[in-house]
Amino acid sequence: MPTVREIFDTIESWAPLSLQMSFDNAGFLLGHGDRQVTRCLLALDVTVPVIEEAAALGAELIVAHHPLIFDPLRSLTDEGDGRKALMLAEKGVAVVCMHTNLDIASGGVNDVLIRLLGAEPEEALDADGCGRVGTLPAPLPMEDFLARCKTRLQCAGLRYHDAGRSVRRLAVMGGAGGSALRAALEKDCDTYVTADVKYHVFLDAAEQGINLIDADHFCTENPVIPELARRLREVYPQVVFAVSRVHGQTARFF
Amino acid sequence: MPTVREIFDTIESWAPLSLQMSFDNAGFLLGHGDRQVTRCLLALDVTVPVIEEAAALGAELIVAHHPLIFDPLRSLTDEGDGRKALMLAEKGVAVVCMHTNLDIASGGVNDVLIRLLGAEPEEALDADGCGRVGTLPAPLPMEDFLARCKTRLQCAGLRYHDAGRSVRRLAVMGGAGGSALRAALEKDCDTYVTADVKYHVFLDAAEQGINLIDADHFCTENPVIPELARRLREVYPQVVFAVSRVHGQTARFF
Amino acid sequence: MPTVREIFDTIESWAPLSLQMSFDNAGFLLGHGDRQVTRCLLALDVTVPVIEEAAALGAELIVAHHPLIFDPLRSLTDEGDGRKALMLAEKGVAVVCMHTNLDIASGGVNDVLIRLLGAEPEEALDADGCGRVGTLPAPLPMEDFLARCKTRLQCAGLRYHDAGRSVRRLAVMGGAGGSALRAALEKDCDTYVTADVKYHVFLDAAEQGINLIDADHFCTENPVIPELARRLREVYPQVVFAVSRVHGQTARFF
Amino acid sequence: MPTVREIFDTIESWAPLSLQMSFDNAGFLLGHGDRQVTRCLLALDVTVPVIEEAAALGAELIVAHHPLIFDPLRSLTDEGDGRKALMLAEKGVAVVCMHTNLDIASGGVNDVLIRLLGAEPEEALDADGCGRVGTLPAPLPMEDFLARCKTRLQCAGLRYHDAGRSVRRLAVMGGAGGSALRAALEKDCDTYVTADVKYHVFLDAAEQGINLIDADHFCTENPVIPELARRLREVYPQVVFAVSRVHGQTARFF
Amino acid sequence: MPTVREIFDTIESWAPLSLQMSFDNAGFLLGHGDRQVTRCLLALDVTVPVIEEAAALGAELIVAHHPLIFDPLRSLTDEGDGRKALMLAEKGVAVVCMHTNLDIASGGVNDVLIRLLGAEPEEALDADGCGRVGTLPAPLPMEDFLARCKTRLQCAGLRYHDAGRSVRRLAVMGGAGGSALRAALEKDCDTYVTADVKYHVFLDAAEQGINLIDADHFCTENPVIPELARRLREVYPQVVFAVSRVHGQTARFF
Amino acid sequence: MPTVREIFDTIESWAPLSLQMSFDNAGFLLGHGDRQVTRCLLALDVTVPVIEEAAALGAELIVAHHPLIFDPLRSLTDEGDGRKALMLAEKGVAVVCMHTNLDIASGGVNDVLIRLLGAEPEEALDADGCGRVGTLPAPLPMEDFLARCKTRLQCAGLRYHDAGRSVRRLAVMGGAGGSALRAALEKDCDTYVTADVKYHVFLDAAEQGINLIDADHFCTENPVIPELARRLREVYPQVVFAVSRVHGQTARFF
Repeated sequence: MPTVREIFDTIESWAPLSLQMSFDNAGFLLGHGDRQVTRCLLALDVTVPVIEEAAALGAELIVAHHPLIFDPLRSLTDEGDGRKALMLAEKGVAVVCMHTNLDIASGGVNDVLIRLLGAEPEEALDADGCGRVGTLPAPLPMEDFLARCKTRLQCAGLRYHDAGRSVRRLAVMGGAGGSALRAALEKDCDTYVTADVKYHVFLDAAEQGINLIDADHFCTENPVIPELARRLREVYPQVVFAVSRVHGQTARFF
Repeated sequence: MPTVREIFDTIESWAPLSLQMSFDNAGFLLGHGDRQVTRCLLALDVTVPVIEEAAALGAELIVAHHPLIFDPLRSLTDEGDGRKALMLAEKGVAVVCMHTNLDIASGGVNDVLIRLLGAEPEEALDADGCGRVGTLPAPLPMEDFLARCKTRLQCAGLRYHDAGRSVRRLAVMGGAGGSALRAALEKDCDTYVTADVKYHVFLDAAEQGINLIDADHFCTENPVIPELARRLREVYPQVVFAVSRVHGQTARFF
Repeated sequence: MPTVREIFDTIESWAPLSLQMSFDNAGFLLGHGDRQVTRCLLALDVTVPVIEEAAALGAELIVAHHPLIFDPLRSLTDEGDGRKALMLAEKGVAVVCMHTNLDIASGGVNDVLIRLLGAEPEEALDADGCGRVGTLPAPLPMEDFLARCKTRLQCAGLRYHDAGRSVRRLAVMGGAGGSALRAALEKDCDTYVTADVKYHVFLDAAEQGINLIDADHFCTENPVIPELARRLREVYPQVVFAVSRVHGQTARFF
Repeated sequence: MPTVREIFDTIESWAPLSLQMSFDNAGFLLGHGDRQVTRCLLALDVTVPVIEEAAALGAELIVAHHPLIFDPLRSLTDEGDGRKALMLAEKGVAVVCMHTNLDIASGGVNDVLIRLLGAEPEEALDADGCGRVGTLPAPLPMEDFLARCKTRLQCAGLRYHDAGRSVRRLAVMGGAGGSALRAALEKDCDTYVTADVKYHVFLDAAEQGINLIDADHFCTENPVIPELARRLREVYPQVVFAVSRVHGQTARFF
Repeated sequence: MPTVREIFDTIESWAPLSLQMSFDNAGFLLGHGDRQVTRCLLALDVTVPVIEEAAALGAELIVAHHPLIFDPLRSLTDEGDGRKALMLAEKGVAVVCMHTNLDIASGGVNDVLIRLLGAEPEEALDADGCGRVGTLPAPLPMEDFLARCKTRLQCAGLRYHDAGRSVRRLAVMGGAGGSALRAALEKDCDTYVTADVKYHVFLDAAEQGINLIDADHFCTENPVIPELARRLREVYPQVVFAVSRVHGQTARFF
Repeated sequence: MPTVREIFDTIESWAPLSLQMSFDNAGFLLGHGDRQVTRCLLALDVTVPVIEEAAALGAELIVAHHPLIFDPLRSLTDEGDGRKALMLAEKGVAVVCMHTNLDIASGGVNDVLIRLLGAEPEEALDADGCGRVGTLPAPLPMEDFLARCKTRLQCAGLRYHDAGRSVRRLAVMGGAGGSALRAALEKDCDTYVTADVKYHVFLDAAEQGINLIDADHFCTENPVIPELARRLREVYPQVVFAVSRVHGQTARFF
């Protein structure tokens, strides 16, 4: 059976930590590197239900996207922000998080996202290597593209600005990507799919005349998780790699 | 006929500039203070269509919520961020913006918002005096409260987390208020209505067990605009105070 | 049996956290506040041998002086600085650290130290409330005072500058206190006992003509530990409060 | 007729914006780039009388040295620092400012200045490329050189320190250049002509033994303006390029 | 005979060091406090000729306005900025400097200056207590006031802006005071006398319509020196207090 | 006879100032560069007794390791930190200090130290070029190595941690070097000799399992002083180079 460190090293060979952005804290974040892994749970976030799911599964490791520890911890008690780290240490479940390195890496969050929406990634969207730009084989009316997003990303709902253009040249950035709207314009995109888009970015899209779709943070990033499970199963067929069933889209639409 | 400065002074007596937050740039931002006003357009933002609407109306003044100039201007050309200021100066339309001072002021954005949702404002939500906390006369099931928000705020759609509690003690903050979620919890609210809510705030709401509703930035702030028009008409019956018809909710739902 | 939080609250009533210096991280740092305590180990530091001693003793709690977490933790693995926190969480041993608040508090590190050396504390040494100043009942020749330090503080050796004066008015600061030499001079002390004294401070003592004794960081702070155990036993007679036997003076003399 | 942007591009090809210093705000600062220019006024500064002169002339463009906007503008009203920008936008006069890029550029402020004083520019004076150093064909007594400065720069008066040396190797910096006195010494100059010289710089000149002449900020920079007009007329013979008659030396001498 | 420290204490009782501005370094700057003084030289600056004058006079002390040490010294060799301090230490001449404390103090630089120009000081000009505002007994035509400045301050020349107003309400600030022009306007002054005035301040004076006179840094500050000598002679009749004959106005006019 | 500057240049050719660390102030710090030197005193520090020793010797120059001026001087009086500089200027004794440049230079502090302890320097210890790493010809029991340190460095006493390993691969850093403990571990050293070691560094040595010896700041740096004297005598046989007899180990052991 592989150890926690071996599985970490495998994923890190796909998404090197050196790629991560300066503010980030991706990496092997909790547990013993030499512990053998028979079951591993993959999820976008390490929430309390995900920790309980891992324990119920008998998993020795959780692989997640968002860092378990982002603001460094000053304590590890049941009362504060270190609560989940304490819980994991007590249950003996290790944690590996691959965040902006997986956003940027080839075959990572954004490559998976743009392919799912029907385009091959041609280049990165921003100067950090995040996001992707690609071209659909043929133009698609905006309404059909919205339906495609909703279906393929499994969103309960979408928020969007329709600039009155059909969709052909596409920019995507999984997660919060509002600040890259201008980069999408500079790359001559007619449509930008991202999430956590604030009001003034929608206003800017209207002024600049670009289609903008907020397809939910979870829904634009989560597609990489089953893909990661699939790749890990190929390398370690003897290990169970399960995708979380308790962690899904957080916001609902009305 | 009153001058631009007189109308500014009137609004400022309702929402003193001294209330505004340190990063803000509310105030009399463009034009001649001694110009007489016969027609005035009110809108949440000074967009290009709003400027054209004002010109078509023959308005000498626009009163808006979001500052026309937020990042100080280094140029005023048709090519850059000073484009709208140049356009306004050329068309001879003055601009007054009342932003965080109007969020905080008694009778401002947040008082109007909470009353519209059925509660009297009892106290401010955060330490800056922004947001409001109040209590509904009787508990309302979450689904009914969502419908009320959608109807009264005229939202095309809502995003929300349902914590499985009915709505009784309510916190609101017009515009982007995700960072005050913890303040709502500390004030024992069961439900928080705000906008521009990011994914990790929805995650936090789920972990903390509070109803959270993202009712759109425009829709949670705009109700103050007709109220402001109403109060100005009382003071200056001889002036036409029109509410913008071209500026509405930016994001659509699918 | 009292809980971890109850014991923490008791010590905190003696040395309030509000006293601690701005850079410090004293407090309830690891574990569950509601866990019942039957055995508690007290030690100056949470070293690996101290953790093993606590586990062997069956202690649910360690009370220490130096913070287990000083630089906030970015990970909790067996490879990095979070190694001891991981080990404690796995073994189910909680940790409470009382650092500069205990230095400053009445009855804390410095009161115990100056009394042990034969003087009643009269006032704090520095502006932060740290250190103490007091007067011996009668002057003591430096050589006798050095012998007293060595015996009562149980130091293996001492480093000192003898200014040719006998000892009467005494300043003390447990732990690293070189920077308070000038404060000792301003308070008309003839002798200053502290630890971790650097060369240029010895040079300064020689130029200023004051006796200076580096009596070891451990030896000047540790006397508070058995005193703390004694006071806790009075409050909680049903709990075993043990003082570490494996943690002692680190540096040896040759 | 050329547009504002075409004229800007022409001047920018002579004094590229990339040369400007980090604190500066040179460039196309106000108006419409596509507006056609039939008349253009050139002046060292965009003062209120210069704006009125441009309007009276029917000029569509002012080309100036000192930036119209230096501290970025937070408002554009008749009451504050944005007053002149508002006035220009209302009158439909565009503004192009070429500041430290024109100081540094070949053929710019300092090349014109040193040639006017009788020397060919040999090298820049400071590390930023500002100022020039050159050699007179033959040494000149200081008194004659002072007379030459007064006549050729059209100064009403001069302030100077006479180090008792004749003038041969000359440093110049148009505008405020006191801080480059040491650079002039390092380049073995016997005489330094600049402006806005403070007392301690005169003291330093006396201690270092170098002739120092404060020949007025306006008078040392303005010679570039007619030269710029001359070069523009060559490129655009169909456009009227007028040099301001209302802007001159501000300080008078008594 | 009084000591250096006694004379320093006397002057400091007139111009307390606590008044000095945060960037300043006024005080007893060089020498032995217990040295007896039989002869003392007073000068605006400690220049090399002033040091030689003091030595030739047999003075044990120089009292000056501008600090001998402004930027703290990293060396004291004959090659660098510490050259004058080294020279003074070798010659055994102590130095006391009274700078912004003397500008601000009652009876100091600015009180002497405004009285010399014909007005009683009424209040400070700026928020730091620097500069003075006063009123002439009767309005004076600008030309007459310029002549008065030149005569009474013994300036070789003046630079000025004439706003076309006669002189009645007067602001003064000895030394470099350009940045207080707006303060003079706020205090309803028609005329401001200061020194080291830069071009953009002259432009501002022209736009604001205020008379502005640059009457030389030395000439506006030096009047306090003989006044200081006079007061010291009263206290210490047995000591020779000489005013420097070698230090005068540095810049000449042409 | 050579001048102060010539002797400075000679030492600087051995330990170039460009090597010194950014916070340092090594160099020719006080006096006249052109003064001829017949006698020169060498000492680790410029203390008051060393100054008096130099004066008694008739020395024109002191060469020392620690900078006479470290925090730049704001005054030079008998009352403050500039006291020694004033004293030296008055006595006509120049000062040259070679600090971190001599730590880093080949043949400097650390090369002399490691050779004295029995190993040839192989490489620098830290990234700044400070400290040295070397290998003993044969392993030595820790007790014997402690005795060697005490004898060869002439320490009155030592503080140490014995990790239970014999001494073979050695790291040294003269003066305060506690922060380089991790560097010694990374270079596979079993033993580290330095000074001014604080408690938490001894704790770290115990946790990491490395022998650590605090052999006194003076004793680890001073061996370079007689070596420097020897080298200077070779270059300038006509000059007396004396090593201080009054400056020695400051701290004593009990």
